[in-house]
Amino acid sequence: MMKIDVLTLFPRMFEGPLGESIIGKAVDRNLLEINVSNFRDHSDNKHQTVDDYPYGGGAGMLLKVQPIFDNLEKIREQNPETKKRIILLDPAGKPFNQTMAEEFSQEEHLVFICGHYEGYDERIRSLVTDEVSLGDYVLTGGELGAMVMIDATVRLLPDVLGNNTSAETDSHSTGLLEQPQYTRPAVFNDMAVPEVLTNGNHKLIAEWQLKESIRRTYLRRPDMLEKLEMTAEMERFLQEVIEEETAD
Amino acid sequence: MMKIDVLTLFPRMFEGPLGESIIGKAVDRNLLEINVSNFRDHSDNKHQTVDDYPYGGGAGMLLKVQPIFDNLEKIREQNPETKKRIILLDPAGKPFNQTMAEEFSQEEHLVFICGHYEGYDERIRSLVTDEVSLGDYVLTGGELGAMVMIDATVRLLPDVLGNNTSAETDSHSTGLLEQPQYTRPAVFNDMAVPEVLTNGNHKLIAEWQLKESIRRTYLRRPDMLEKLEMTAEMERFLQEVIEEETAD
Repeated sequence: MMKIDVLTLFPRMFEGPLGESIIGKAVDRNLLEINVSNFRDHSDNKHQTVDDYPYGGGAGMLLKVQPIFDNLEKIREQNPETKKRIILLDPAGKPFNQTMAEEFSQEEHLVFICGHYEGYDERIRSLVTDEVSLGDYVLTGGELGAMVMIDATVRLLPDVLGNNTSAETDSHSTGLLEQPQYTRPAVFNDMAVPEVLTNGNHKLIAEWQLKESIRRTYLRRPDMLEKLEMTAEMERFLQEVIEEETAD
Repeated sequence: MMKIDVLTLFPRMFEGPLGESIIGKAVDRNLLEINVSNFRDHSDNKHQTVDDYPYGGGAGMLLKVQPIFDNLEKIREQNPETKKRIILLDPAGKPFNQTMAEEFSQEEHLVFICGHYEGYDERIRSLVTDEVSLGDYVLTGGELGAMVMIDATVRLLPDVLGNNTSAETDSHSTGLLEQPQYTRPAVFNDMAVPEVLTNGNHKLIAEWQLKESIRRTYLRRPDMLEKLEMTAEMERFLQEVIEEETAD
């Protein structure tokens, strides 16, 4: 069973997201154990201070090293045996991606440290194994980033998703975006399902799906195509798509 | 006041994150109104079905167009005057970034549609203005993505952050990663604060901060430097950093 610890100043933020959806179900089914702790409880200061002014001046406050250090020590005492991957959520970290989610899903014990306010005392970085950023945008804290990383990781654990093929066929797992998909009704507000999908010819359907998957990737994320190893059929569809899209 | 609507099958996921931290405070201060609705309540099917099998076969289920269409109609009825930006959370969408957060923060009314399960009936895309992806990783649903986008957007609204300079000086806003920062104590577990930060010479401190900001960006995110317009001083520091880092 994977263990996850989260260190945060806002433990209540995690109540909804971790309780609902597949993460909550994974916890209920004992596939996963998640503990959220407030590192303010570990402050050695009588006012339970967790932040202080930066040396050398500057706007805002920094998180102090002591409360996070002591919270991590507590987790080590409670879990002396587990191999820990300690992840600092930080805009200056390595951008999170699917490969990292796959790596995290192989670990025994993940510990996420969520900052808030302006930043971290630099010495906090010496306590962690990874510094990870969710993307090139600024958030008010690391909490949502930790939730995203937990979600992306936990769905890859064995038995978490009902359908074993689901994790593999999604966008970003195959290296192509998914083709357009349709469900009933066949016509909604004058918008009809493409005929090929309703005629029952499985070979034609599979070809249409692969080609439209390549078209969508070509139109929206050509950078993804550059990284892809393509079969001869895929190369041919890509050429057709390029011709069709540049025709007029 | 900005309005935000969220369409989701898991409204309870939003309770913690939207209530806590600066988003909750912005709502309390009437800077923001957030409504979360469950589009299952708009299903015209007596079993309140929201998904169905894909035409042409394939793993998993697709979200049907009708419940989302009707939920959007309801929002339009309730808000006939507002100019709406309707954002579909989708792995095949445009990757979210800080520029998009800035754009969203200028809007009057944001509507986020959070998918779950395998994907959307393609016709749902015709109902929206934007299709946005959080990053190159797979999540179980769009809910966490919507929360991240709301957080990144709301913190840019006037008066939301206490300190007006905070939104601008963070990483990704200046185009450089932040330099290492330190707060008290001066020494923790044998780790000391760099001397320059404690000697009170503001010019030396500012130079150290800029140079270390460039160093961190050079070491961790050289791609960010390529996009940056640099002053002569910044160019000089970059050269020094390159020499120092490649010295041994």
